[in-house]
Amino acid sequence: MAGEKTGLQLLDFWVSPFAQRCRIALAEKGLAYESLPQDLSNKGELLLRVNPAFPGTPPLLPADPFARAHARFWADYAEKKVFDCGTTLWKRTGQAQAQARPEMVEALRTLDAELGDKAYLAGEAFGFVDIAVVPFATWFLGYGRLAEFSVEEVCPRLLAWAKRCGERESVAKNLYPPEKVYEFIGYLKDTYGDK
Amino acid sequence: MAGEKTGLQLLDFWVSPFAQRCRIALAEKGLAYESLPQDLSNKGELLLRVNPAFPGTPPLLPADPFARAHARFWADYAEKKVFDCGTTLWKRTGQAQAQARPEMVEALRTLDAELGDKAYLAGEAFGFVDIAVVPFATWFLGYGRLAEFSVEEVCPRLLAWAKRCGERESVAKNLYPPEKVYEFIGYLKDTYGDK
Repeated sequence: MAGEKTGLQLLDFWVSPFAQRCRIALAEKGLAYESLPQDLSNKGELLLRVNPAFPGTPPLLPADPFARAHARFWADYAEKKVFDCGTTLWKRTGQAQAQARPEMVEALRTLDAELGDKAYLAGEAFGFVDIAVVPFATWFLGYGRLAEFSVEEVCPRLLAWAKRCGERESVAKNLYPPEKVYEFIGYLKDTYGDK
Repeated sequence: MAGEKTGLQLLDFWVSPFAQRCRIALAEKGLAYESLPQDLSNKGELLLRVNPAFPGTPPLLPADPFARAHARFWADYAEKKVFDCGTTLWKRTGQAQAQARPEMVEALRTLDAELGDKAYLAGEAFGFVDIAVVPFATWFLGYGRLAEFSVEEVCPRLLAWAKRCGERESVAKNLYPPEKVYEFIGYLKDTYGDK
């Protein structure tokens, strides 16, 4: 397949289940593409450009396999539970919105319990899981107002943790105040929410 | 940050938790990048080029939200359980490899039970979850030989399902015979496995 119609290029590897998924899906959709077989033991310029790696920089994930899996689990939890449930809160109305309320409270309580008395979700030092979860913290205020619960009562340790994370320059410079995020949630609701 | 050293460009959106994660991680790694703010209600050429969508093609995921979540769950299961455990089987030796054996058997039994008497993991018709899981089926023979179990005994329904999937042109043209995959696993073991 020449790919002249779609412009799609697949960085391909014959036996990779991930490449195979793409090939099957493209075939099911009838989309032409250009297969670019990759040498994974000697990565080419295009593969490295779209998957850049910077081995000289500080690693964000822990070295220990169990700790890595743990960090990924909680990053995934925030993404799947907190974000998806939050979207239901601003986007939907009635029954769907009402069901999302206890789910959000439960998700925040679970994250609060996971943090416990640790300084960071990653442990003593700020790490991958903190980076992955802290952006959602700027949305908590909005979630609490939409679902009419007190974030301070539901997840007090998580709020203290978010403030602690905010003392790092990397976080302080790249997040926005919860009030500004709440204004944005109002815009989302007005523009894209169910009427 | 001008991004002249790394060439990194971030398709950015100020309040998105996903963009915020990237910005914090880049700051922690001290990597310069060019922030390219995106209008998500009117997506630009670059954003569409790296995230192409083809609304005129057959949808792969079901329309029902519960069914979509279900399909994503089992796609994720195959990826996290079967693939990761399979990697341990060919890469590691001794205790680590021995521990992965019952885990693989359990994962395949679980997938077999989930399939049950359905024609496809997606139900009556081939769908997203079948596309996501069937590439791993070509690796089952190799996993069984490495871990010394009979795939036919552990997951007979899953093998029949893989064969059924293989009757589709999209699958038949894009997967390789299990024996050829097993040869490749031998190469992986010899080249990258623990000695």
